[in-house]
Amino acid sequence: MSNFLFPSRLKKLRSKIGNQELDAIFISNAENRRYFSGFTSSAGYLLVTPDQAIICTDFRYTEQAAQQAPDWRVERIGGKPDWIANLVKELEIHKIGFEADDMTVNTLERFKKSLKENNVYAELHPTSDYGVDLRAYKDNNELELLENAIDIGDQAFEETASQLKVGMTEKEAAWIFEQAVRVRGAESISFDTIVAVGPNAARPHHEPSDSKIVEGQTIIFDCGARFKGYCSDLTRTLVLGEADNEIKRIYDIVLTAQLAAIELVTSGMTGEDCDAIARNIISEAGHGNDFGHSLGHGLGLEVHEQPGVGPNSKGKLENGMPFTIEPGIYIPGWGGVRIEDVVVLENDKARVLSHARKMKF
Amino acid sequence: MSNFLFPSRLKKLRSKIGNQELDAIFISNAENRRYFSGFTSSAGYLLVTPDQAIICTDFRYTEQAAQQAPDWRVERIGGKPDWIANLVKELEIHKIGFEADDMTVNTLERFKKSLKENNVYAELHPTSDYGVDLRAYKDNNELELLENAIDIGDQAFEETASQLKVGMTEKEAAWIFEQAVRVRGAESISFDTIVAVGPNAARPHHEPSDSKIVEGQTIIFDCGARFKGYCSDLTRTLVLGEADNEIKRIYDIVLTAQLAAIELVTSGMTGEDCDAIARNIISEAGHGNDFGHSLGHGLGLEVHEQPGVGPNSKGKLENGMPFTIEPGIYIPGWGGVRIEDVVVLENDKARVLSHARKMKF
Repeated sequence: MSNFLFPSRLKKLRSKIGNQELDAIFISNAENRRYFSGFTSSAGYLLVTPDQAIICTDFRYTEQAAQQAPDWRVERIGGKPDWIANLVKELEIHKIGFEADDMTVNTLERFKKSLKENNVYAELHPTSDYGVDLRAYKDNNELELLENAIDIGDQAFEETASQLKVGMTEKEAAWIFEQAVRVRGAESISFDTIVAVGPNAARPHHEPSDSKIVEGQTIIFDCGARFKGYCSDLTRTLVLGEADNEIKRIYDIVLTAQLAAIELVTSGMTGEDCDAIARNIISEAGHGNDFGHSLGHGLGLEVHEQPGVGPNSKGKLENGMPFTIEPGIYIPGWGGVRIEDVVVLENDKARVLSHARKMKF
Repeated sequence: MSNFLFPSRLKKLRSKIGNQELDAIFISNAENRRYFSGFTSSAGYLLVTPDQAIICTDFRYTEQAAQQAPDWRVERIGGKPDWIANLVKELEIHKIGFEADDMTVNTLERFKKSLKENNVYAELHPTSDYGVDLRAYKDNNELELLENAIDIGDQAFEETASQLKVGMTEKEAAWIFEQAVRVRGAESISFDTIVAVGPNAARPHHEPSDSKIVEGQTIIFDCGARFKGYCSDLTRTLVLGEADNEIKRIYDIVLTAQLAAIELVTSGMTGEDCDAIARNIISEAGHGNDFGHSLGHGLGLEVHEQPGVGPNSKGKLENGMPFTIEPGIYIPGWGGVRIEDVVVLENDKARVLSHARKMKF
């Protein structure tokens, strides 16, 4: 990722600090850390004030932090959290936001204790929207990385689909996908691949098992690749051999609902409105109770992020936001069908980023 | 894992609740959830009282929970956290422990708010030792799974080592290891493999890059396999071609320190005492400042867990505890050497569980 991106993200972060009348924000969430600074390690914090940008990390990562975030000051931390008191004193910051959805109760207590023991006064304010809100909108660089991840996932899925055979286990199929993703340059899969055959497909988050692919049963394949941090997400439902009429009927309802949502979603709509487009079609077909999850979700550095696209998603969908559209119908004992693409809102309409072929009858 | 294990773990958990004069414990940590109930999902909580054992999870995982933990009551949760207030009311529990090292500030606030809004009285007490303390001791079933993970990791490492070539990148080497682990039945690697060549080996937690293996430079290879949840951890330092005298000298110090700690550690010693055995040897050789991390750590369902084996580890090492012994020397610009085995304390002495060959000069 080019370094010129980070100053503009930092600027937005600082403007949020100002709006909330804070002296500083303390970032602990790993993806937010990466997003604002470019520093990719698994451990560390950011402390940002109107004129300072500091990465706090332990000895294992200080060299990496300096390389990845050359404009940031790197503060080596470790052991007791006295470093937080020292920084608060040095920077003269007294109203500090922290990420309450990420920070554990004990970490917050340790920080408070350190401030007290060092006779440093500061109020720690819970926040929940830093990073998360900004990250819902993707800049061009992020969209490019996301599209790369999606292309890798699509190709790896198609390679895997062409190798599926009756008698192959769900685990074997998942492993073929994972290898195909890696040889294409992804650093990893973006979440544990779901391969669910027959009745297993009735569980939306089934773990791949030793169950074997059976002719004429649905196979839900939900998979993704992570490329330079960005996560793709794709679901296709397949049948090896002949699909019976019930499969065709259910598949057609889900596909119709999915295509309608893609066609009709516009910027300015809430996530709830978008969800309703697909949900109404499924409900009218008599399967409203068999669609037990949200229609979709934003994705980027995390495979689930803002915006929400579910029955209670009050936030607006806006140009520049990518998200999934993935209706499903699940019938215990029988199986399930789910179809998922990633779209991005551009010029008020959805552009589909996923290109893997869909089963047609 | 056989079901007969879980009742004995649950019994220990309940005895801890009694000792701390709590009515119930609320478990949010994923590994603790798995350890006590056998339920492996990525989302859910346990609520345990002296006579109730409840898994709280959302619609995606209720079926899996019922299968994996047949003795537990499964409570379907979702959306607003009113379920917590309802359970507190039903079970008449008023002093409830929660895991303060795992629960976020916001989750705790949401629970408190739900109790208040539903006019339910309960005190929520931070705890930090549930699960973590018990899990330091491994029962025979756990040791067997851990040894399986270690054997897979050892074999995969030896296969990888035999394929290393001058000019191969760190990333390529890491991927060979990962494939070798998977084809042997591990569900995944247990942490991101570290392959660090030449000067990169001066960073203890270097990420595999496109740097190539160079003849005559050290290669630190730190890797592990996860088998049925249990994590192995192994480090070997290799050289392709001829090692110069400086490499031999440093390697010899590290190996001597490692073997001494394995030989001399006894049950009843603190983690600090064990760390000091290796650290003193490295310090006397003039490299005390080049060994910037702890000697080791416990491992099991997490790759880092109790007991601690570092300069400030006050807890005792006891029979039944497995942990790593992994001294290292890191010299910026030059590189590094680290050698790591897993041992378990039995009959007061360390039994070495790692069997991958070590480089000899």
